[in-house]
Amino acid sequence: MAPHRPRPIIAIGINSTGYHGNSWKLGEGDPARYQQFDHYRRVTEIAHAGVIDAVFVSDHPALMEEGATRPLHSLDPITLFAGLAAAVPDIGFILTASTSYNSPYNLARRLATLDLISGGRTGWNAVASFNPKVAANFGSAPIDDHEVRYRRSHEFLDVVLRLWSSFVPPTADIDKDGPALWGKGAIRPIDHAGEFFHVRGPLNVPPSPQGRPVIAQAGGSAQGITFAARYGELIYGSALGRQSAAAWSRTIRAQALGFGRPADSVKIIPGFVPVIGSTQAEAIRRYELLSQETADAAIARVARTLDLDPATVDPDENLAKRDLRPAADRIAPIGGFEALAGLAREENLSLRDLATRVDGGHRLSVGTPDVVAEAILDWWRDGTVDGFVVQPPVLPEDLTVFVDEVLPILRREAGFPDKYTEPTLRRRLALPDADDSIPNTLPEQKKVSLG
Amino acid sequence: MAPHRPRPIIAIGINSTGYHGNSWKLGEGDPARYQQFDHYRRVTEIAHAGVIDAVFVSDHPALMEEGATRPLHSLDPITLFAGLAAAVPDIGFILTASTSYNSPYNLARRLATLDLISGGRTGWNAVASFNPKVAANFGSAPIDDHEVRYRRSHEFLDVVLRLWSSFVPPTADIDKDGPALWGKGAIRPIDHAGEFFHVRGPLNVPPSPQGRPVIAQAGGSAQGITFAARYGELIYGSALGRQSAAAWSRTIRAQALGFGRPADSVKIIPGFVPVIGSTQAEAIRRYELLSQETADAAIARVARTLDLDPATVDPDENLAKRDLRPAADRIAPIGGFEALAGLAREENLSLRDLATRVDGGHRLSVGTPDVVAEAILDWWRDGTVDGFVVQPPVLPEDLTVFVDEVLPILRREAGFPDKYTEPTLRRRLALPDADDSIPNTLPEQKKVSLG
Repeated sequence: MAPHRPRPIIAIGINSTGYHGNSWKLGEGDPARYQQFDHYRRVTEIAHAGVIDAVFVSDHPALMEEGATRPLHSLDPITLFAGLAAAVPDIGFILTASTSYNSPYNLARRLATLDLISGGRTGWNAVASFNPKVAANFGSAPIDDHEVRYRRSHEFLDVVLRLWSSFVPPTADIDKDGPALWGKGAIRPIDHAGEFFHVRGPLNVPPSPQGRPVIAQAGGSAQGITFAARYGELIYGSALGRQSAAAWSRTIRAQALGFGRPADSVKIIPGFVPVIGSTQAEAIRRYELLSQETADAAIARVARTLDLDPATVDPDENLAKRDLRPAADRIAPIGGFEALAGLAREENLSLRDLATRVDGGHRLSVGTPDVVAEAILDWWRDGTVDGFVVQPPVLPEDLTVFVDEVLPILRREAGFPDKYTEPTLRRRLALPDADDSIPNTLPEQKKVSLG
Repeated sequence: MAPHRPRPIIAIGINSTGYHGNSWKLGEGDPARYQQFDHYRRVTEIAHAGVIDAVFVSDHPALMEEGATRPLHSLDPITLFAGLAAAVPDIGFILTASTSYNSPYNLARRLATLDLISGGRTGWNAVASFNPKVAANFGSAPIDDHEVRYRRSHEFLDVVLRLWSSFVPPTADIDKDGPALWGKGAIRPIDHAGEFFHVRGPLNVPPSPQGRPVIAQAGGSAQGITFAARYGELIYGSALGRQSAAAWSRTIRAQALGFGRPADSVKIIPGFVPVIGSTQAEAIRRYELLSQETADAAIARVARTLDLDPATVDPDENLAKRDLRPAADRIAPIGGFEALAGLAREENLSLRDLATRVDGGHRLSVGTPDVVAEAILDWWRDGTVDGFVVQPPVLPEDLTVFVDEVLPILRREAGFPDKYTEPTLRRRLALPDADDSIPNTLPEQKKVSLG
């Protein structure tokens, strides 16, 4: 056990009926539970019983209209998590919200509200949207190109971070016979006038017990990595090959130091899909049941992620010998491409091999509880990652199996906790105080007064 | 008791530390409770114990920077109510959200999510923002003029209503061995291309047990009344004088019928501020404690609401003899002006008189529980109103007094309920089914396909 990190961080993805598209058909649950609050409450309670650090949801404000799969995203994440935070103690809530289709003031306010309701247990995974189906729900504006998307996201984060410290009134020991609830020093209007946003401030919500929400990021492209290193405290992204994951991780940590951030302000927790059986054969049978996909379909899916035409590539060709490059007009995140290409290169894999190693863009582990636990511990021990966002294929049952069978091994081998001891997500993750973790580097010349 | 309405509707305003600016100083509560979830939970639990129909919050996404008063609006309403809905059963949740600084897709989704979390207990008070301080938090765009504001709001409501019926999948008796969670008939993209919005749809959240949230409105101007009559199921607004309130109420009900809406689809529940004492003298003393305002300051405040210069008007002049008109450049809602001018006209009142009859734009009743209950019943018996949104000056104590002292009189005299019997807000308020209550009248020619 490496001395530099006390124990692995484990978050649980709780989207919909489970990570797998077929999850609505499988198991005991109501097929329509993707829209039932009680389903999410039950899943969160199971995670809480396992002393999991946080539940996590991705998001996508559009309906995928294919009824054969479950809607991966239905209930609004902040609204859902506010209900869950009132119902389930201790556990953290990390949600995804887009910088493309929200205004900084409204989103900063909603996140600050959730952070107060939860008593400082909120994390925000800030993403820039790229999907044309999403854009069609928010006007006819064309989708920004990759660079503009990130420039907008940088400015969005700068504004939100400053809003979160723009109204800091006393919240204890206030004299009721005094003249006011707060003095002038409590208010710091941000007067932001930038390329994309004009926001006067201050925010009307004060800080929470953890200061502000923890910021999560999933950047994989060059710009994405810089964005993650600048603002990300939790880094959630695609990490598939051990060597390329280590290189990705080193790059982010080094860039974060370059931004003046402390070493412990960045925790790397990529996605991880466990398929667990009491024997290896049983685990493989479960994976076959879950995927319900022909080998050809799986190969074609992997090929498309690599911007390859499945019709023209031999599925058994060693891709390490190819010069793999993302298509010039690629809209989907570069990170998914890089992670998959890196895995092929370092292990000399073909499309057929890749299809059994990756699930929905994340690292797949099919095996007994020991095998799955070791897959987690192997990357954690030497500091390649700080933990994982575990994506159970079917909820709640695959979460129950993970909590009952895998977590005891992580407790025994790596000191995973058996009770909650810190009240906030920030403290539980051993992150620095909010002001130290992400220094404010907004250029002074941008602070134009709006009068 | 008029046969046409079974009993008065009572909602409770639960903003901040109470309706009065000084409420942070008064009573036993923590002065900083405006940002504490547990405060709102306690208030909602007291309302629930009283079998109140719904709690209500107004909203304003900006900080009023005057520390001598409490922030009237801090926590984001939808996020707050999602937490409360998970914590408190039965009671309804009516929140305010702006059509000016939200996108229809995101807001429709958040409201639909709250409606599912609450099991069909949500109401949405749709408002158009007019305050320059709010605008400054959402870019430098100039504030739309009154007519444009309403045109935008009409289109916003049309889009939101159609989004709420754009994805209607089966949610029970789904065959897990079948091919899909829903068939093609479940999906109705709205393909909206209008003056202000382009929204393809469908929404990714299905209907709740009450179909969709109940729509509340506060319109007082001519355009506001038309808007309320077209979309409002609950009408919350300024009603101060008995005769002008009756005229306002008749106008809205008549226009609603003209829009093809059923008579029972509109419930009129203006604001009402109770100041209760065990004797009349005690109630007056409490009002003096609450207002902590000189008579001159109160008179000046009323004058400004009437667009009069307090320096040039005799505070004892009978205003009924003046030709009161809103200023041409008035930005604040016309409804507040009309209600106050109407009261002055019908009762021959001066500025000094008005200052004791109105509180923050709403009807004020200062007296014993019998006096306050009679002020409610007097307007309800003949159908002028269907009930009130009661605004306790200090929370929670003035709510506790209202629940303990006034509600028993409403039970005895008007059949106010002593238990919850309907699961949804819509049913509790005896509103028609969602599809019947607000017919879809969006012109066919606006339904342009976006391909």
